[in-house]
Amino acid sequence: MPVRLDRSSSDFADRFAAFLATKREVSADIENATRAIVNDVAARGDLALIEATRKFDRLDLDASRLRITPAEIDAAVKACDAVTLEALTFARDRIESFHRQQLPKDMRFTDAQGVELGWRWSAIDAVGLYVPGGTAAYPSSVLMNAVPARVAGVERVVMVVPSPDGKLNPLVLAAAHLGGVSEIYRVGGAQAVAALAYGTATIAPVAKIVGPGNAYVAAAKRLVFGKVGIDMIAGPSEVLVIADRTGNAGWIAADLLAQAEHDASAQSILITDDAALADDVERAVETQLKTLPRAQIARASWDDFGAIILVNKLDDAVALANAIAAEHLEIMTSDPEAFSLKVRNAGAIFLGPHTPEAIGDYVGGSNHVLPTARSARFSSGLGVLDFMKRTSILKCGPDQLRALGPAAMTLGKAEGLDAHARSVGLRLNLP
Amino acid sequence: MPVRLDRSSSDFADRFAAFLATKREVSADIENATRAIVNDVAARGDLALIEATRKFDRLDLDASRLRITPAEIDAAVKACDAVTLEALTFARDRIESFHRQQLPKDMRFTDAQGVELGWRWSAIDAVGLYVPGGTAAYPSSVLMNAVPARVAGVERVVMVVPSPDGKLNPLVLAAAHLGGVSEIYRVGGAQAVAALAYGTATIAPVAKIVGPGNAYVAAAKRLVFGKVGIDMIAGPSEVLVIADRTGNAGWIAADLLAQAEHDASAQSILITDDAALADDVERAVETQLKTLPRAQIARASWDDFGAIILVNKLDDAVALANAIAAEHLEIMTSDPEAFSLKVRNAGAIFLGPHTPEAIGDYVGGSNHVLPTARSARFSSGLGVLDFMKRTSILKCGPDQLRALGPAAMTLGKAEGLDAHARSVGLRLNLP
Repeated sequence: MPVRLDRSSSDFADRFAAFLATKREVSADIENATRAIVNDVAARGDLALIEATRKFDRLDLDASRLRITPAEIDAAVKACDAVTLEALTFARDRIESFHRQQLPKDMRFTDAQGVELGWRWSAIDAVGLYVPGGTAAYPSSVLMNAVPARVAGVERVVMVVPSPDGKLNPLVLAAAHLGGVSEIYRVGGAQAVAALAYGTATIAPVAKIVGPGNAYVAAAKRLVFGKVGIDMIAGPSEVLVIADRTGNAGWIAADLLAQAEHDASAQSILITDDAALADDVERAVETQLKTLPRAQIARASWDDFGAIILVNKLDDAVALANAIAAEHLEIMTSDPEAFSLKVRNAGAIFLGPHTPEAIGDYVGGSNHVLPTARSARFSSGLGVLDFMKRTSILKCGPDQLRALGPAAMTLGKAEGLDAHARSVGLRLNLP
Repeated sequence: MPVRLDRSSSDFADRFAAFLATKREVSADIENATRAIVNDVAARGDLALIEATRKFDRLDLDASRLRITPAEIDAAVKACDAVTLEALTFARDRIESFHRQQLPKDMRFTDAQGVELGWRWSAIDAVGLYVPGGTAAYPSSVLMNAVPARVAGVERVVMVVPSPDGKLNPLVLAAAHLGGVSEIYRVGGAQAVAALAYGTATIAPVAKIVGPGNAYVAAAKRLVFGKVGIDMIAGPSEVLVIADRTGNAGWIAADLLAQAEHDASAQSILITDDAALADDVERAVETQLKTLPRAQIARASWDDFGAIILVNKLDDAVALANAIAAEHLEIMTSDPEAFSLKVRNAGAIFLGPHTPEAIGDYVGGSNHVLPTARSARFSSGLGVLDFMKRTSILKCGPDQLRALGPAAMTLGKAEGLDAHARSVGLRLNLP
C-alpha cells in the first residue's frame, strides 16, 4: 500500500518531511572497486578495457573488435521491425525540431563607455554517450542524448554500450544510427567511462560524458568529473500527479503505474483535494496491476514509495509540489495552465488530461532526461546547452582602459595583487 | 626558467603533449577526513559546526554568534577605504549590467500538429556562496558570485566565510553587502559546505553551492553533489597570450606576471610567431620580477609552469590554443578579432593590447569565475544560467494525442514498458 498523507492532520509536517527524506537508492560502497577499474584503464588503455569486458560482460574481444562496424549497424537496422523504426524516426524528428529551438544566440554589445562585451557559444568537440545494456537499454534514451548533441554541433558523438555475453539490442544501434552517433564501442561499466575520459589506443578521448548507467557507471562519472564534463547523476524516476475532481481516475492510475513499472525504486505520487478521487485512483491502480506484465516491479514501487496526499484546497498543493520538485509533474485540474505557473520546481510539466507523461518519454519532442531525486530544485533537463560552452569576450580601446583602469588598479592593490594593478598602470603610464 | 617549445622542432608533438598533461595541483588524500567532517555536521548540525570551527579556525562560537549581524556588516563597510568602496561599487554596477543581458527568455510554441511545447526558466530558491578566508579572500570574487545570483532572482544568497582566529576582511563583508548577500555565517571549510547542504538549526539548507575554496572545500563539494548542485571545481588560474610582432613585450610580460602572482600553481603561456618578441618578453619578465611584491610566488609559477611556444605562422597557434583551452586568452595581434573567431576553447577572450586580463578580473563586467585546467573544452564561466533552472512544458489536446499516441505506444511496447503504452491507449480507446 502506498503511504497516505492528509495535509489537515496534525502530524502532516513531520510525516511529509520524513517522506521527502526517504532514500530510494542503496548506495553500496563501490567507490574503491570503481577507482581501481578507472585507474587501470587510464594506465593500460585497451588492454585493461578488454580484460574488464571479459570479466564483467563475459565477452572476449581484441582491439579490432571493440568498435561496432558500419556493417553491423546496417544489419541491426535491417533486423528491426519497420513500424518501430518508423516510430523511432518520428521521435527523432520531433526531438530534433524541439531542440533546434534551444540553440543559443551569441551576444555582442557596446556599453556607454565604449567597452565591447559579449559572448560566443560553441559546441563541445567530442562527447561520450553511455548507454546501458540489458533490460535498461532504451533506444529512446539514445535519441534523447544523441540528438541534442548533434543539434548543438558536436562533431564526434561516441557511444559506448555493453553487450553482455555478446548480446546487443538492435533497436539501440538503430537509434544511434538515426541519432547521428559517429562511433560505437561494445564496452560498458566503469571501464567504458574511463576509456572515454582518458582515451585508449582505439578510443580517442572525449571532453564530456553523458547518459545513465548503474551504480558503477555513476561512480566512475563522479571520479572522472573535472578531467571531463559529466551530466547529472541520474537517480530513480518519479512522477507527481496533481488532480482535482475533474481528474479521470483510470487515466491517473495508468500514469502512476507507467512510472512505477520502470524500477522498484521509482516513485509515483498523487496530490488531490478530492478524497473520492484518491480512493478511485487507488482502486484503479489495483485493477490495472492485475493485467500488467511488469506488475511485480510496479507493485514494489507503488507499495514502497507510492504516496497519495490529500489537501483541503488545491493551492495547498503548490508548496508541496515545490518541495517534492518532481522529475515529471502532471497537472490534471480544471485550469492546469494557471496552476502550473505557481510551480517553480519541476523537471517537466505535462498539462491537462491528454498529456500523459509517456508522450514526453517518446515523441513529445522535449527531452526525457530530467532531474530526479529533488534535483529539479537546482538543475534542468538535458538540452542543447549541455553540449555547448560559452566564451566571454571583452575589448577595450585606449579610452575605455582609461575609464575603467583606475578602479581595476584600486581593487588589485586592495587584494594585494600588485602585478594586476601594474598590468593596467603600465599601459596608462600610471604608477 | 619557463619551458620553451618550438613548433618546428621534430619532437614538438611529444613535448606539447607532455606540457598539456602537466599536473599543477597535488591532490592530497583528504577525502576520508572530509567525509568525516561532512557526516558529522549532517548528523549533529550546529554542534559539529561549532566544534570544527573551534578546531580549524581557533574560534569559539556559540550558535547565536554563527551569523554575522547587520551591525557588524555596517561596521565593516565603515572601516573600508572610500576609494576602494567606490571601485567596488563601480565593479558591482558593471557586473550587474553585463549579467542582466544573460537573463534567458521563456519559450512557448505550437507545432504543426497543434502540440504546445516550450520551457520556463526560474531562479533557484536558495544558493550558498563559499568565500575563502585569509590571503585568498577576494572581495571581487564575492561580487562575481553574488551578483549573478541576485540578477537571476535567487531570494536567499547565503554566504559562508571562515574567520581564522576571528579575523575577517572588511572588504569581503562590504562586497557581500554591495552584492546583495542575504545572510553571512563566519564558518568555513568542509564543515561550512556541509552546513549549507544539510542545514543546521541555525543555517537553513540551500539548493546549490558555488564559490572557490581549498582542497577540503572542493572535496566537500564533490561529496554533497547530488544532494545539492555545485559549480565547477576550480583549479589554479591560467593565461594564454597570443601575440605577433605588433605585441608590446612589457605589457605582455606584465600580463603573464599578473597571472603568475596568484599562486605558485598558476600558469602563464605565450605563443608567438616572433622569436625576437619571445626574447624581449622573457627579459621583461625578469626585469619586472625585481620590483614585484609577490615576486616569490610569481617566480615559482613562471619557472615551474610558464611556457613560451614559438610557431612559424600565427595560424599554427589556433590548434594549440584549442588544445590548451585556457581560462583566459589574450590576443594581441594585428587583427585580434579575426584571430579570435578561430578559437573555440577558451573561458574568456581579451581582445587587443588595451584589454589586460586584470580589467576582466575586476571591472569589465563579465564574470571572472572561469573554467580552469582545460575545462573550457566542456564548460563555461559562471553566469546567470547557473542560478536558474529550466522546466519543460508539454501540452496535448485530444487531437494531438491521437496524432502522437500510436508512435509512443509502439516505442513503449518495444522497450517492454506496457504501462507506458497503456497510459496512452486508455485515453484513445486503443489496445
